[in-house]
Amino acid sequence: MIKRMIQQIDLNKKFNKINEYWTPKIIGELNGQYVKLAKLKDEFIWHSHQEEDELFQVMKGTLIMEFRDKVTQTKAGEILIIPKGVEHKPKTNGEEVWIILFEPKSTKHTGEIVDELTVEKPEWI
Amino acid sequence: MIKRMIQQIDLNKKFNKINEYWTPKIIGELNGQYVKLAKLKDEFIWHSHQEEDELFQVMKGTLIMEFRDKVTQTKAGEILIIPKGVEHKPKTNGEEVWIILFEPKSTKHTGEIVDELTVEKPEWI
Repeated sequence: MIKRMIQQIDLNKKFNKINEYWTPKIIGELNGQYVKLAKLKDEFIWHSHQEEDELFQVMKGTLIMEFRDKVTQTKAGEILIIPKGVEHKPKTNGEEVWIILFEPKSTKHTGEIVDELTVEKPEWI
Repeated sequence: MIKRMIQQIDLNKKFNKINEYWTPKIIGELNGQYVKLAKLKDEFIWHSHQEEDELFQVMKGTLIMEFRDKVTQTKAGEILIIPKGVEHKPKTNGEEVWIILFEPKSTKHTGEIVDELTVEKPEWI
């Protein structure tokens, strides 16, 4: 689907439609990129994206990101950008974390890894 | 400048560095796109972007967007996406509005119009 219209999006209303963790949903599209929302809890898998940088904007909670050589914490009101090729493993400290993702339409959330968690075709909400 | 490192960005700290209106500043870069912040007050000029869709995420206040056939209001917690080619004129109701912009590196904030307001090379903050 390509949206060529003016899109006005209420983030809280969209977050309220999400009832699974680690399953990004599309809320907007522009310039070949998707804007997605996700709710996170506990931990995801190690992965990287060979061709795409990835942006996480934290809206609620604290996103903990493990890298091979360090760990970062990104709080509500902060943005984390991970360059392509950098292995990472997102997790939370047990609380629910809400994020906005901004990434090319081609990006899979599990990167090069195809796992039982991989969502092949993210849904619009 | 191309940033190929992990970027962690505190939005409030960056907003506090901005002391002019209608002058987007770059805070992040990924996939050929810039993440920019701007403070807005009063009104800007009519313009459109021939090649680029434009995203506004409102962080504070209410962004009023005039189109040729309607007016929208986008509040804090909401996102507005304007497709390429659609003429628009941003304004505020007199209060200060803080926004995050997400757009290709090639986008000029005044679109096809070169005006005294046009910033040719936006700054990193």
